[in-house]
Parts: sequence; C-alpha cells; structure tokens
Amino acid sequence: MLRTHLAGSLRPEHAEQTVTLTGWVARRRDHGGVIFIDLRDASGVAQVVFRESDVAEQAHRLRAEYCVKVTGVVEERPEGNQNYEIPTGAIEVDARELEVLAESAPLPFQLDDQPGEEARLKYRYLDLRRPGPGHALRLRSKVNAAAREVLGGHEFVEVETPTLTRSTPEGARDFLVPARLHPGEFYALPQSPQLFKQLLMVSGVERYYQIARCYRDEDFRADRQPEFTQLDIEMSFVTQEDVVLLAEEILVALWRLVGHEITTPIPQMTYAEAMRRFGSDKPDLRFGLELVECKEFFAETTFRVFQAEYVGAVVMPGGASQPRRQLDAWQEWAKQRGAKGLAYVLVGEDGELTGPVAKNLTDAERAGLADHVGAKPGDCIFFAAGPTKPMRALLGAARGEIARKQDLIDPDAWAFVWVVDAPMFEPTADATESGDVALGHSAWTAVHHAFTSPKPESMDTFDTDPGSALAYAYDIVCNGNEIGGGSIRIHRKDIQERVFAVMGISHEEAQEKFGFLLDAFSYGAPPHGGIAFGWDRITSLLAGVDSIREVIAFPKSGGGVDPLTDAPAPITPQQRKESGIDAKPEPKGAARGGATSETEPSAN
Amino acid sequence: MLRTHLAGSLRPEHAEQTVTLTGWVARRRDHGGVIFIDLRDASGVAQVVFRESDVAEQAHRLRAEYCVKVTGVVEERPEGNQNYEIPTGAIEVDARELEVLAESAPLPFQLDDQPGEEARLKYRYLDLRRPGPGHALRLRSKVNAAAREVLGGHEFVEVETPTLTRSTPEGARDFLVPARLHPGEFYALPQSPQLFKQLLMVSGVERYYQIARCYRDEDFRADRQPEFTQLDIEMSFVTQEDVVLLAEEILVALWRLVGHEITTPIPQMTYAEAMRRFGSDKPDLRFGLELVECKEFFAETTFRVFQAEYVGAVVMPGGASQPRRQLDAWQEWAKQRGAKGLAYVLVGEDGELTGPVAKNLTDAERAGLADHVGAKPGDCIFFAAGPTKPMRALLGAARGEIARKQDLIDPDAWAFVWVVDAPMFEPTADATESGDVALGHSAWTAVHHAFTSPKPESMDTFDTDPGSALAYAYDIVCNGNEIGGGSIRIHRKDIQERVFAVMGISHEEAQEKFGFLLDAFSYGAPPHGGIAFGWDRITSLLAGVDSIREVIAFPKSGGGVDPLTDAPAPITPQQRKESGIDAKPEPKGAARGGATSETEPSAN
Repeated sequence: MLRTHLAGSLRPEHAEQTVTLTGWVARRRDHGGVIFIDLRDASGVAQVVFRESDVAEQAHRLRAEYCVKVTGVVEERPEGNQNYEIPTGAIEVDARELEVLAESAPLPFQLDDQPGEEARLKYRYLDLRRPGPGHALRLRSKVNAAAREVLGGHEFVEVETPTLTRSTPEGARDFLVPARLHPGEFYALPQSPQLFKQLLMVSGVERYYQIARCYRDEDFRADRQPEFTQLDIEMSFVTQEDVVLLAEEILVALWRLVGHEITTPIPQMTYAEAMRRFGSDKPDLRFGLELVECKEFFAETTFRVFQAEYVGAVVMPGGASQPRRQLDAWQEWAKQRGAKGLAYVLVGEDGELTGPVAKNLTDAERAGLADHVGAKPGDCIFFAAGPTKPMRALLGAARGEIARKQDLIDPDAWAFVWVVDAPMFEPTADATESGDVALGHSAWTAVHHAFTSPKPESMDTFDTDPGSALAYAYDIVCNGNEIGGGSIRIHRKDIQERVFAVMGISHEEAQEKFGFLLDAFSYGAPPHGGIAFGWDRITSLLAGVDSIREVIAFPKSGGGVDPLTDAPAPITPQQRKESGIDAKPEPKGAARGGATSETEPSAN
Repeated sequence: MLRTHLAGSLRPEHAEQTVTLTGWVARRRDHGGVIFIDLRDASGVAQVVFRESDVAEQAHRLRAEYCVKVTGVVEERPEGNQNYEIPTGAIEVDARELEVLAESAPLPFQLDDQPGEEARLKYRYLDLRRPGPGHALRLRSKVNAAAREVLGGHEFVEVETPTLTRSTPEGARDFLVPARLHPGEFYALPQSPQLFKQLLMVSGVERYYQIARCYRDEDFRADRQPEFTQLDIEMSFVTQEDVVLLAEEILVALWRLVGHEITTPIPQMTYAEAMRRFGSDKPDLRFGLELVECKEFFAETTFRVFQAEYVGAVVMPGGASQPRRQLDAWQEWAKQRGAKGLAYVLVGEDGELTGPVAKNLTDAERAGLADHVGAKPGDCIFFAAGPTKPMRALLGAARGEIARKQDLIDPDAWAFVWVVDAPMFEPTADATESGDVALGHSAWTAVHHAFTSPKPESMDTFDTDPGSALAYAYDIVCNGNEIGGGSIRIHRKDIQERVFAVMGISHEEAQEKFGFLLDAFSYGAPPHGGIAFGWDRITSLLAGVDSIREVIAFPKSGGGVDPLTDAPAPITPQQRKESGIDAKPEPKGAARGGATSETEPSAN
C-alpha cells in the first residue's frame, strides 16, 4: 500500500509515530505560511499541518481535491485545539514529505454545496465524494451483507439466472437485445427472475436467492429506473408463514444496521381491511387518520351525492381553520386525481357544522356526524362518495396529504405491516389505467402475477367467480412503501392453465410463451413460494433518502439517459449491420446455427 | 414447513420419532407387496418403507420423480441391512401416511443416465436433479460466499454498476439494447465494469468488488457464453503486490472448499519466460516438458530449415516408439495450427538418431543433440523453426498434447503461477488473428487493455518504442487456464492520452468514447489497480468439470440459444415499433426527453 495508516484511524496513541497517509485535500487553510489541510480518505479525515518551510512551500500549491500522499509524525494537538466533532480531532500530522499523486482541475461544484441533479449525475464520481452519497453506497454494501448472512444461515443457495432470455410480458415492456446469430430474433432482459426461480424449485434447489438485476422499459414516471435490483427468494415445501418468518428475519437484520429493532411478528392486515381503513394496499401506519365508512350513517340521507355505492370520510385535525383558498386547493387536488372534488364539512369550535355540504344534512345527521367520524371541534371532515374503489383511493391519498400538511408523521418512526389475502384478479381496465400492460385478452388480469396460487378456499371457484378469489400473496409495507411482495406459487399444470384461461390466455398462447414452465410442472414440481424485496427502495429508506437514485452508483436521469457516459448513443452502420436488427425473422423452429458439442475449454 | 426433518439428516438417534419428509421418489422397489423408496431432498436420501397394507396400496402408484410427503416412524435397520454408503443407511422410515404432492410424467431421460447436451439443456430442471449438476450449482454458491468473506474482512464495498450503458469496444462486440425513449439510439451491455470501477476509484470508494455479469457478443467458439460472470475488484493506493496478496487470499479460500491448500506466495514468472520455457502466456505447470532453445546449438547448421529466427524443441518421452501413422498425425495436427509441419528426430534405444531430419544434421549436432534437449533413448524430439512467436506457440501446444497423450498430468495436481510483465502492446495483426476486435487504427493494440499502466521503467518510452514497453499487468494461471487478470491502471489523463495515441485513437475519438474517464482523471484520480477473476472458469475447475456450462444454472447452447425457453425469439410488430429500432438516429446533443427533477417516490 502507498500508505501506512488510514486517516480516520489516527488517535492519540499513535503520537510520535511516523505515518504515511493518502487521500484528498478536503480543506486547505493558510495561517501565516503554515498550511493546514483536512486529508480525507475512505475512513475519515485527519488534519495535516505543513510547518517546516520546505514542505510548507510545496503545500502552497495544494488545491481542493488534489490527491496526495503525506508522510509525517502524529502529534497530540495542544489543549484547546482539539476538535471533538471528528474522531481524529485530538491529533494532527506534522508533515515531513508531500507527494501530489494527482492534481485536480477546479471543481464544477464544491463538495459541500448541494449541486443540481444533472451536475451530480454528470460528475457522479465527484458527487460520490460527498459524505451523503458516499455513505449511501457503503450502506448498500452492508445491506447486501446483512441479508446474505441471514440467508446463508438457512442454507440458501445463491444462483445467477440468465439476463439474456425470452420476452415474457409480466406487466411491463421488455428491453430487447438483437441476437446477431439469429438475425431478426431478440433476447429480452428479464423483468424479474420469476420463471427461472420457479424452474429452480422444480430442479430441487429448494432454497434459492439472488440479488438480481431486473429491467423494465417503462416510462420514467415517478422514481423509476430502467434497471433496478431485487433480493429474490424462493423456497420449496413452504407455507406463507415460512416465507413471512424468513422475510422478517431479514428485515430485522437490515433495520439493525440503522439501530432500529423491528418488533416481530410484524402485524398482518388483509387487503380488504387495508382498503377499508386506509384506502390503500400499502397503508402508511405511522399515523392514524383512518377512513370512516359512512354509508350506513347516511342510509336515510336525502342528499343525492351521498346516495352512492360508497360514502366515506377522513378527518383533518385542526382543518376547520383552513382559509378558503386552501379548501379550494383541495378541490383542485382531487380533480387532478380524476375526482369531481372533495366534499367537506368544517366542525366549528362550538361544534357547529359549516361548509357547503352541511346544509344538505338533516338535523339528526348533523348531530351525530362528528361523533361518527371521530371529529373534534376545529377539525375538517373530508368526504368521498361514489364507486367504492376510486373513492377509497381518493380518501387514502387525502389521508397521506393531511398527515404531511399537519406534520403528523414522526420522521423517526418505522411502521411495518404485511398486507395479505389480496384479490386474485382485477378487472383489466383497472390494471391498464394504472399503467401496467395487461397479459392476456380477458376482462380479468392478475393482481399479483399469473403464477400466484389461489388461496386454498378459492381453489375450486377462482375461475367461475374470479372477482371473489383470493390470492395466496403477501406484500410487506414500510411507512407506506411496498418494499417487498411474494406469494405461494402454482405448482400444478392444471391450475396454471385454469389461471391462464381466466386471463384470456389461450392454450396455444400459454404453450408458446410459458410451455417450458408448464412442461416443468409435469415432472413432480414441489409446492413452493417466495418473495422479492425492492432492494433500491429498502436501501433508500435505510439511508433516509427520498429517491432510489441516491442508492444507485450510476443512476439514469429521467429520460433513461446517463449524463456521465452519455448513454444511450447512436451505433455505427457496421454495428447495425452485424446486429441483424434489420433482418426479417426466420420462421421459428428452423435449423439453428452453432453446435452444442463440447469443445476445448478456454477461460472466459 | 411441510416437513419436520430433512431426509439426509436422519440418524439412529432419531429412532422411534415420527417424522414428516418431503422430496422426490429417486428409486422404488417392490418386495412382495412391501414398497421401498429412496426419498431424495436437497439434503440427501432416506429409505422409506411402506409396509402397512393401506399405505403400501397407495405407494404402488408411485413412480420415479413423483414429489411426495411422507409421515412415518424412524426405525433402525436390522443388523445386516444397513447401507454404509449413504449417511442415512442405518435407518429407514416406516411410512404411515403418504401424500402425492405432484405426479411426474415419464422422464425424457433417467436421472442416472448421461443424457445428451441438448436434452440436458431443454430439461435443465431435471438435469439439475442429478447429483453432479446439482452439486456444481451449490458449490458455486459456496464459492461466492468464500470470496465475499475474504473481501468483507478487508472493508471492500460491493457496488452494482450499470448494465444498460454505453457502447465502448473492449476487444469484442457489444450486445446492443434499443432505447425506446431515444429512437435509433442504443444502450450496450457491458463487456466488463472496467470503466465504472475506475470511476468508483475516482469517487474515493478505494475498495470495490462485484460479482458482475458481463456480456460479449462473440461467436460461440470453444467454451464461451454470451453472458458470463467475473469477480471484479479494484483498489486505490495500491501496488501490484497488494493486489496479488489479496488475490492469493481469495484463491486460498476458494481452493480450501475442495480440500486443497494452495502454497503461497504463488510463484511469479515473466511473460517472456513463460513464452520461452512453455510457449504460452498461460503455462500449465503440472508437468515439465519445457521448450528447449536450439538456435545457438544449431548456430553453424547447414540444414536450411534450422537457419531460422527461432529454433526450439520439445521432447516427447517414449515417443520414439510411435508408429509412422502417429508421426504423420502430428504433421496433420501442426498443419491445422497453420504450421508447415512438425520436424522430429527419434532417439533409438541405442542412442541412434533417426527420422527425416536426422540425416540433415552434422555428426557433431547428432552427437550433442539428445544431451542438449534432455532427451533419453526411446524419446522423440519435436522441432519448430521459423518466426519466434508462432513457433513457440506451436511447441507450447505440442507440449500440452504430449502431456495428454502420454498421461503425464496428475489429475489431482493444482499448479498456480502469476504471469507478469507482459508487453504493453502487440502488433494489431496478431490481435485480429486471434479473433479480437482491435480498438483504434494503429499498427499497435493493447495486450491487456487500453487502461493498463505501463511499468514505471517503460513510462518514458512506451510511445516511442511500443514494442518494448512492459505493462503493469498480472495474470493468474491455474493448470494452464487463465483464471484471472489485472493491472495497475493509468490514473493520469496525459498518460492515458499517450496510450490512446499509440493505439491510433485520435484525440476526438478518445474524447467521444472515453471523454468521461479522461474528465474524471482531471479531478484528483488516485493511483489504482485491480483484478477480475473468471468466475465460471474458476468454479468449473473447482467442480472438476470441463465446461463452464456445467456451473451456469441456465446456460446457452453453442449458437447462443436456450433450448429450454427457446430464446432468442422473434418479436411482435408492436414490440418492434415501440422499440424505436427502425428510427434514424437524431444527431447527438439534441434536446433530451424526460425530466431529472425529483418526483414522488414509489416502490420499484
């Protein structure tokens, strides 16, 4: 090594030792010809002082982010000069030799500034020298190690599955890769290792995991990346409870990295309850503000608006004092979500109900309303009335908005919940509205995915009554984020074919797309199930950052562009020609090029 | 869990316990109405006996590879009935209940047969139930864990680098991925994380590793896969010795998995010595048969053929007794390698030299030859004469062929060697002949890669005398396989530009392709170096298998086809349209779509 010690490791017990440090000039100060620098390496920072004239002379040319090698003697700082904010603050290194390993041009931004997103990505190698981004990357490595330790303790086998594979739509668009040796044909990058991990169960692997790169060619709405990572797990001969137990053990290990002890078992809530009480399948349980069902309360109402399939309310504490302008803003907010508006009633300090809705209520309704919804004087009651699903979703969104506006969320809180017993199917229209590509050509599409088993109680009826069937699925939610989800899978060919049929996937189409899985199920497939954790999201929660981009070493910007390498880019005509993109596909089943016989091995 | 115990865990101390096992019917025997099965799960095999008439009745329908759940009582086998070849051979399970979890259709091949390659890949999920392939997959997982333990002990940070990146030729063809949001533009799958790991060093990560998927769109000659894996490592502030030490620690840990203790330090040999003594830059040191330089010996020769730039020999022990037919086969063998033939001299048991070459030698040459090359009576001496490089390569190949033919290789031996001080550049013609795509447009191309530093002694002269420059590179060779290679990198922009210039890469082209790396080097880039191990090759060596396909869960066959999923495949017209493949590229630098601003986070 070019150094003898790590800068951040130096303590008073090193005093009088001659050490060699390497790192970067984080700060440089000149006190009357004596140069002080903060020398930073991966371990931390140490103060180096250039007192002797020769070396101080050389140190004059140092600038921010020069990469240097310094040899000097560790000295305890004089009483009063210690800096107790850094671990090395009781010492300094009296420099005797300085070597500039690499100079630095003036920086495009100062490392202690907050540069813009574009600059951060273009100069990501400088951005990562900043404490926050650098820490996030190191934390991610620890997250991997903690999960692997749990999995290793349970005899899990880490398996790499292919990434040049077959296009099998799973709710999003595939990235394609031209296959040069088969002009006009393409590989697809996997949206998840789902099919391969199920094949591994058929193989008798029994316990599989992989920190797997996945690919979805979606529009870059919200916080999405074209490539992302999941911790992918599959187990044979298990029930839901076994997967849940393992998942909780992993989560406990991860949150210990940030000093939080998750209480287990993590509570479970049915999908139906989550929708009823929180208007969301990923309820944020850090705060209350539960939705209140008002249908029965308004059973006799004469107010037309409330004569609906669903009437519900959510209370905004202290919301009665909102100025008119804010109440109007709520209407705008609701309209942006496709609703007509957001009805409200204000509860005066004297208990009097006001607002446009109040006058449509009967005296009895007015008398009982605050009690029914749990509103206190000074609160605002928001209502949604109409079809159940979108109205609950609207109130669920309002609930989150209220909590943020009224600062009801403890920033240090961690609230975990399992959401179980989701519906097996949903109407295709709902799925496509939410942006997913529906698989199949039916009125029904899978809520989880096509390989999820119905719950035992739905096994006989899921195809005759798809709307009532429950899936053997479980999602883990943290602070309102779905951080993982899994299911017990179908392991029988007949059931898989029935599920495909509900989704309008014909026998031929199923055979063409998933024939290999159906074939595999013919050879003694074990019962199995698993889970996948959203690794980027989990790491971003642990790192305390909002975007998954913060925990990805080299993320893409919004349009899928890497401002650093300037990918994607045009290709050369020769690349285009060789790739075979422009060829007309041969009919499938024609003779293939290439041999499969063993040939002389050579290192890859 | 559906089971209480693992089949392979049962021992006499479990006697009298009621256990539930799950697994597959590996074997089934009927002894007069009593059914015996070998029940196999991931842990091993246990014998289950169905004696009681009800359950025996049910067990009659069991067939090979049915997946079953059995509850029964563990019993010690009677004296004389134990099977000491399996760990559970002292017990059997007296079955009381049987549940068939999944039936199996008749198998396409029996699991204890040796099916053909195509069948194995098509039914890979059955192939992996066989002990050999299943073991290889589990071993691979242990290999990962062992390496990570070493790296974790040295504070390495595991970082995932992008796989949708920019096309930057590194000696092979890139796989391309159409970028839908930028019609006509493409991402490339990385041939290695080389540039990103160097950027991470500029970021101050200091110690990086990744078990990284890499992609090369090469023809599927020899034992190559379109996607393969390397253990990728990079370190800052290091010398070659530091990287070598770490690599050796990793190799020691890996080979301990198969019970072999590697002696360290692993010997080092210069590239020049390896070529001279073994005719190869990856010498197999499990056997001798060194090449003997004969140029000086034949300094005065009148034999035209030996008046060449290079004359060398390799001795085939006992080779004098080869029939004429075999000696002719050697000529054919040499011609297939592009040589004119392979001259030889046979040493009779009486020391007399015979063969076509012998009569062209002077008496003095004949008298001293056997001694000079170390041949004994009964040996055959093969010669190559001509240009040094191809002739050494020919003799090196002959050396390996002789060792295999004469059975001189100890199958249990492990011979490691570092090959160091390789040339920095080689003539472009040599590189393209060996199948690599030359980067740049010069007479010179990089032997290692364009980012490898010249050795300090070549720093001043590498561009004025490229043919003599030595690279700061090191390859690790095991039993004649290159299992890893690395180098100290260039960390200075001026040197990197000089290396590009030697390779005929213009300033503009360098800026276009690698501008981001050159830019990064402007901001205090630390000295750094690293190594990448061929993970598939290493695992195949440890597993004792010939092909890397044996240690890949779902490998491609020769033509890049996956016979299981039938990838690659044609795409739909809609997929083609959406992908933007057919669009004409916009000029680079035009406005990009998509925003980079923060938006509401959502789980990925």
